[in-house]
Amino acid sequence: MSTVKRLVLDVLKPHQPNALEFAQAIARLGEGYRVRLNVEEVDEKTESTIIVIESTSLDFSRIEETIQSMGGSLHSIDEVEVWGSTPDTL
Amino acid sequence: MSTVKRLVLDVLKPHQPNALEFAQAIARLGEGYRVRLNVEEVDEKTESTIIVIESTSLDFSRIEETIQSMGGSLHSIDEVEVWGSTPDTL
Amino acid sequence: MSTVKRLVLDVLKPHQPNALEFAQAIARLGEGYRVRLNVEEVDEKTESTIIVIESTSLDFSRIEETIQSMGGSLHSIDEVEVWGSTPDTL
Amino acid sequence: MSTVKRLVLDVLKPHQPNALEFAQAIARLGEGYRVRLNVEEVDEKTESTIIVIESTSLDFSRIEETIQSMGGSLHSIDEVEVWGSTPDTL
Amino acid sequence: MSTVKRLVLDVLKPHQPNALEFAQAIARLGEGYRVRLNVEEVDEKTESTIIVIESTSLDFSRIEETIQSMGGSLHSIDEVEVWGSTPDTL
Amino acid sequence: MSTVKRLVLDVLKPHQPNALEFAQAIARLGEGYRVRLNVEEVDEKTESTIIVIESTSLDFSRIEETIQSMGGSLHSIDEVEVWGSTPDTL
Amino acid sequence: MSTVKRLVLDVLKPHQPNALEFAQAIARLGEGYRVRLNVEEVDEKTESTIIVIESTSLDFSRIEETIQSMGGSLHSIDEVEVWGSTPDTL
Repeated sequence: MSTVKRLVLDVLKPHQPNALEFAQAIARLGEGYRVRLNVEEVDEKTESTIIVIESTSLDFSRIEETIQSMGGSLHSIDEVEVWGSTPDTL
Repeated sequence: MSTVKRLVLDVLKPHQPNALEFAQAIARLGEGYRVRLNVEEVDEKTESTIIVIESTSLDFSRIEETIQSMGGSLHSIDEVEVWGSTPDTL
Repeated sequence: MSTVKRLVLDVLKPHQPNALEFAQAIARLGEGYRVRLNVEEVDEKTESTIIVIESTSLDFSRIEETIQSMGGSLHSIDEVEVWGSTPDTL
Repeated sequence: MSTVKRLVLDVLKPHQPNALEFAQAIARLGEGYRVRLNVEEVDEKTESTIIVIESTSLDFSRIEETIQSMGGSLHSIDEVEVWGSTPDTL
Repeated sequence: MSTVKRLVLDVLKPHQPNALEFAQAIARLGEGYRVRLNVEEVDEKTESTIIVIESTSLDFSRIEETIQSMGGSLHSIDEVEVWGSTPDTL
Repeated sequence: MSTVKRLVLDVLKPHQPNALEFAQAIARLGEGYRVRLNVEEVDEKTESTIIVIESTSLDFSRIEETIQSMGGSLHSIDEVEVWGSTPDTL
Repeated sequence: MSTVKRLVLDVLKPHQPNALEFAQAIARLGEGYRVRLNVEEVDEKTESTIIVIESTSLDFSRIEETIQSMGGSLHSIDEVEVWGSTPDTL
């Protein structure tokens, strides 16, 4: 088994929901999720963001769904950290 | 539930209230608020500032109101950190 | 005897399996494997990635086989760390 | 209530009192004051300095008065750190 | 007496044995040897590598012999750390 | 009262006494003095040096006298750190 | 009294004795001497090196003699650290 510990995602999002609401929606997916969202560039209709998500065990499918449900599009996965073990303390 | 741990805000403010008074007004919003304000650029009538606010749990709405009540305008949210959990120790 | 503690591999991979699935396949090779995959460059059909793998003891042959079985090609070994001892705690 | 923990001040001072005497006068304002003064530029009659002052609780008004009483002028507040709490250990 | 604690060697090696096998051969020289090999540049027939070797006590002669026996040539010693004492814990 | 904890001095010195002797003379001024002297530039007759002096309590007057007695001239005080308290542990 | 804790020396040396032998000769001067020698530049007949020597108490005269006895010339003292106290633990 393997466990996803960290994801760095390059995400294009609309201005609304704003950066805070966007991060909050992802953080609500799990008790120990830590989400850091940086706005890299602001265009007329969109914002390029880098979202770093860490937890003892991340559920990528639900994160991807949540991003899409808010009008965001996952541009690329920039970094992943995966451990070959069952979830335990980070 | 989710908890906001850290906000980095790009704020344009008038010269008065000064940087210290501005930071103090935000810090007074909560017992554990830590506010660091850096003046990035000084123009004739305004100052561009970056305000970093950290706490075990931040209330964004009250922070935004406080900034506006002092004549500041929130230019952008540059970074947010949100945890998917109830507030506890930082 | 010697033990491989860390490998930094320069790997060219197709878009599918994606970066997460790719890292997961390597991490599943051993209980204590930690895999960090960074996507360095995205081209039309391929992605250049740097994969850092750490463990108390890594099995290079199985890692290489796993990369090839997913359509990846090992461009180069950029860094290795080897200890002249039997495997124990990292 | 709020407590000022750190100030970074951009101060223009005459050559006399010198940098050491200038910093000492500010440090004497409080038992736990730590003052670091860097001379950034020396001109014919003045010196541009950056003064970093830290304590569990700083009194900005007295600092400003002290700077002016020695012929210095506070060019700008470059950074402030304020905590929303009563003074306790740093 | 003196003890060699660390060597940084600039070594030109053929493609075979590969970087991993090369590092392993050096690490096998002593129980506590830690070898980190970085490939700096890859040419048609050779690879420029930097090899960092650390231990409580390194045997330079055997390291040099091992490098030569694999077709490598020691270009230069870039750094050495030597302690004026008998070998004990690093 | 205030205590000088750290001085960074820009000092022009003749070649003799050399850098080591120069630093030693300053260090001898107090039991806990730590002196780090960096030679920044060597000219025909002089050397530009940066001297960092730290202690629980520094005596600036004696330091200045010592520098002058060896033919050095204090070009500028680049940094001072002063604490608003009686001398205790650093 | 004063104690020399650290010396950074700019030394020009011939190719033989090599960097390792050169550092070893200095390290043998005292039980706790730690010598790090970096080769900065290699010319036809000489090597420019930076030698960092640390100990609880260094003997500069013997270090200088040792360098000269191996054909090296002390180009400059780049840094010295001296403490105004009797030798004790670093």
